[in-house]
Amino acid sequence: MSEILDRLAETLEARKNADPQSSYVAKLYAKGIDSILKKVGEEAAETIIAAKGGNRDEIIYETADLWFHTLVMLANAGLHPNDVLNELARREGLSGIAEKAARKDQ
Amino acid sequence: MSEILDRLAETLEARKNADPQSSYVAKLYAKGIDSILKKVGEEAAETIIAAKGGNRDEIIYETADLWFHTLVMLANAGLHPNDVLNELARREGLSGIAEKAARKDQ
Amino acid sequence: MSEILDRLAETLEARKNADPQSSYVAKLYAKGIDSILKKVGEEAAETIIAAKGGNRDEIIYETADLWFHTLVMLANAGLHPNDVLNELARREGLSGIAEKAARKDQ
Amino acid sequence: MSEILDRLAETLEARKNADPQSSYVAKLYAKGIDSILKKVGEEAAETIIAAKGGNRDEIIYETADLWFHTLVMLANAGLHPNDVLNELARREGLSGIAEKAARKDQ
Repeated sequence: MSEILDRLAETLEARKNADPQSSYVAKLYAKGIDSILKKVGEEAAETIIAAKGGNRDEIIYETADLWFHTLVMLANAGLHPNDVLNELARREGLSGIAEKAARKDQ
Repeated sequence: MSEILDRLAETLEARKNADPQSSYVAKLYAKGIDSILKKVGEEAAETIIAAKGGNRDEIIYETADLWFHTLVMLANAGLHPNDVLNELARREGLSGIAEKAARKDQ
Repeated sequence: MSEILDRLAETLEARKNADPQSSYVAKLYAKGIDSILKKVGEEAAETIIAAKGGNRDEIIYETADLWFHTLVMLANAGLHPNDVLNELARREGLSGIAEKAARKDQ
Repeated sequence: MSEILDRLAETLEARKNADPQSSYVAKLYAKGIDSILKKVGEEAAETIIAAKGGNRDEIIYETADLWFHTLVMLANAGLHPNDVLNELARREGLSGIAEKAARKDQ
């Protein structure tokens, strides 16, 4: 299933060379990092509002929006979703309170 | 690679029955939805700050934190990361400005 | 100077009875709490981005946007900015680390 | 009432020369801009969660936290709350949809 993240990463990479008028993402790149991050903040807020509201479809929809815009942010920074998934996998080695303690020490 | 999301979803599901003192996530569940969402908001802010700062390691680290806490939020709502990935895959069928237009109409 | 908050509170109160088409705020009320909170989240993100960027005019502009939308949120909840200022004044009686400790205990 | 903002601005200014161990705010300054902005993001999320929850005391409490940390951010940037209040007063001259249009054009 989650090869979708790879596929999205490819699409987002390809959009870097696209005409800003040709797609939503190409336009976001052209507007620059502040516009991308503004969207990340906006979608985070909408995710929180949806989760607090409790409607499952809205939670899925807003979380998809949030993940999507973090993928745009990663692509914009020359990063791949696998960089983040690797970090999550690395942490899975750790566990529970121990993990939290390790993070606090950073 | 991204079977890590499945693995994390499993772990997060298992933690629902764990002693709140035994792990960071079990403690978060016990504190409830507001505490989980507070973490989502906090990590979104840290992701934005890291991305604006431009340090790649920090961006990866904070995005991992953000995704992780959205996974906790999804688990708490009885949802699976695949629900979100399916939504992203569905949208991949659409494209560019057309997609944006479709979202605006919702 | 800061009677401006009183003045704004009055204006925001008056807009509750206005035609949604007649003003930005009347439209926000009509859209409801989720739309107002989405704006709070969006403007908080923009404030963070501006502050991280360091441009003074942008910081002022975005903070004004953020405060403004929290005022709309307060009005929507039947609250007055003085309710918040009173809470801040109450805390001013407390100080420093002691204050932080007091808040942690809540 | 709202001379409280002036009073807080003075206190926040004075804390710039204080021992980081002596107060919560002095510690925040010492940690730097990212820590201050992280708090702004965190308190914005808590304000949204409180407002969505609808408990008036929590809304007041969290909004006070949010405003307080934006005041710390302003002080850290060498700005005064009056800079923001002046901007809000300037906008009060404009109105409704016209104001929104003006902001869109920026």
